Amino acid sequence: MTEQNTPKFDQLLCPLPLPYKDKVVMSHGSGGSMTKALITEIFQQHFSNAILDQENDFAALPLEGKDMRVVVSTDGHIVSPIFFPGGDIGRLAVSGTVNDVAMSGGQVKYLTASFILEEGFSLADLERIAQSMQDAAAEAGVSIVAGDTKVAEKGKADGIFISTSGVGFVDASVQIGGAQAKPGDTVIVSGSMGDHGIAVLAARNQLGFTTTIQSDVAPLNGLIRAALQAAPSIHVLRDPTRGGLATTLNEIALQSQMDIHLEETAIPVKREVRAACEMLGFDPLYVANEGKVIVILPERQAQAALDALHAHPFGKDAVVIGHVETPSGNTPRVSMHTLIGGTRIVDMLSGEMLPRIC
Amino acid sequence: MTEQNTPKFDQLLCPLPLPYKDKVVMSHGSGGSMTKALITEIFQQHFSNAILDQENDFAALPLEGKDMRVVVSTDGHIVSPIFFPGGDIGRLAVSGTVNDVAMSGGQVKYLTASFILEEGFSLADLERIAQSMQDAAAEAGVSIVAGDTKVAEKGKADGIFISTSGVGFVDASVQIGGAQAKPGDTVIVSGSMGDHGIAVLAARNQLGFTTTIQSDVAPLNGLIRAALQAAPSIHVLRDPTRGGLATTLNEIALQSQMDIHLEETAIPVKREVRAACEMLGFDPLYVANEGKVIVILPERQAQAALDALHAHPFGKDAVVIGHVETPSGNTPRVSMHTLIGGTRIVDMLSGEMLPRIC
Repeated sequence: MTEQNTPKFDQLLCPLPLPYKDKVVMSHGSGGSMTKALITEIFQQHFSNAILDQENDFAALPLEGKDMRVVVSTDGHIVSPIFFPGGDIGRLAVSGTVNDVAMSGGQVKYLTASFILEEGFSLADLERIAQSMQDAAAEAGVSIVAGDTKVAEKGKADGIFISTSGVGFVDASVQIGGAQAKPGDTVIVSGSMGDHGIAVLAARNQLGFTTTIQSDVAPLNGLIRAALQAAPSIHVLRDPTRGGLATTLNEIALQSQMDIHLEETAIPVKREVRAACEMLGFDPLYVANEGKVIVILPERQAQAALDALHAHPFGKDAVVIGHVETPSGNTPRVSMHTLIGGTRIVDMLSGEMLPRIC
Repeated sequence: MTEQNTPKFDQLLCPLPLPYKDKVVMSHGSGGSMTKALITEIFQQHFSNAILDQENDFAALPLEGKDMRVVVSTDGHIVSPIFFPGGDIGRLAVSGTVNDVAMSGGQVKYLTASFILEEGFSLADLERIAQSMQDAAAEAGVSIVAGDTKVAEKGKADGIFISTSGVGFVDASVQIGGAQAKPGDTVIVSGSMGDHGIAVLAARNQLGFTTTIQSDVAPLNGLIRAALQAAPSIHVLRDPTRGGLATTLNEIALQSQMDIHLEETAIPVKREVRAACEMLGFDPLYVANEGKVIVILPERQAQAALDALHAHPFGKDAVVIGHVETPSGNTPRVSMHTLIGGTRIVDMLSGEMLPRIC
């Protein structure tokens, strides 16, 4: 990201009440502009290096004298509640990290898991979560090869937190990443938006009504492998997790220095998810997904990719939602042709919409 | 580990009051026998695979058709307080994971970091910790290449937790690991025992007196590289962290199916650490270290290893503390020739001695 596009930490903190200017707030974990500011102004400031600064959800590490790279990724998981319709923190921890590594276009092979447990946490729940992790790992074809367990006193954690890291391998010739979107590229999503976020909210009984919505949490490496076999020229793969589709596309627009134009009517949102969002005042484009992928690729391979996605259970609702354009202004942006015929700018999430969604 | 040597979960939980039989207790995070039981009975039960079951602090992953392995490790860090004499949670998170990877005998290259922050945590402290992480990473010659940040509500975490994972590379021919101790091998430690644990206790004002003890927290990959150059036949490298020297040697004895015999008078413990332990009723052999390594190797290379360790600032007090023997009984054990002339069994830590020491 070039400097002029980076929101400044101070600017982003200014709207907050003064006592919070020097403290971590929930929005710092939203995955939106506050998270980006925290990363840019603190972590990148200190850790800066060529690999980290690429700002992908994975890091591709060179292997001296070899024709492949080692791909790693890490994610902390603090979802609340830990069990929700369609999944649990264990399936989430495995799927989230498998997916981040898979977004490199490489093969995911191994996971590590660091558990932080709160004193008093149920051993039966821990066992159920371990089983769920192993089920998701087997589904993804990966092994959990190293782990660590720490215990914090009652009231100093919240049941269970799981940080997973993933290891995979990718041919050195593969250049898939957020900075690779090109003018004319087609933008595909693999299915409906917002299922995970709304399912977690439902599990918190925050909807005020019952719903059948299930989280989409799933390891996508098999789906992505199928898409890559059918469409080897894919430029960008990314999963629209925290911050949702809108935030993720804004990140890609900034990394690639490209405009992205969407068709609102094309974006798949389940009826129940749309209804829940309307009642709660949410925009489903900002709600987290944990089993969906954005695929950006040359138009000539779009149909082949769609056919491959449709043939896989996790991609049966895949659809073209937009395309990439040369930037019309100084700042790359995401815009959308709306239902009612106008065009509006789709910004990155600012503030916190749904805390502890992953 | 063979089955007959594995303490059974139920046996280990039996001594606890009934309400805690089905819940996580602080001892599950001690690094001692309760931690081992939790890992064996829950995590290994579900995740079991050839690499995990080797029970090293690192996992060495095969690279198809290559003459090297990728080495990964992961550790969560929840130390309290986050700043202590000689270090902080940032230096600890980098050093702990660098050291776990280095114990494979390979070269550590990359780290990932997953941050779990509590709402209200000081951004100035976060920045200080990030700087400390980068300083330790630079000292170790590694890059932090991927990260993640989550935020939990006030009262649902404790300031900051950091899970780090490390990536390194080792020649496929290197076989260093906890199962490699051989009869006649010499056991070396790189310096004094218990400094880290007592320094953290001092920072909690739990000593009841002031002390000049500093944590030994440091990245040891340079020290280990020097030792390996001087003594390439090293069989075992391991850092005696949670559970201390006694617990770590018991793990090695079990993995190698060997007895280990120690000389109490040879084990270096600083005067202030010994005094603090006596006042608190602790045995310094069970107190955590974060900048020390146990080296087990053939006697013929012991002097070369000692010379190399002595030439490095982190190994200047390295000393031979014992040797490896063919097991005298059915169960491998660690024994010690004591100050007063007798011999006693040195068991694995049971229960919790010092919570949240790392």
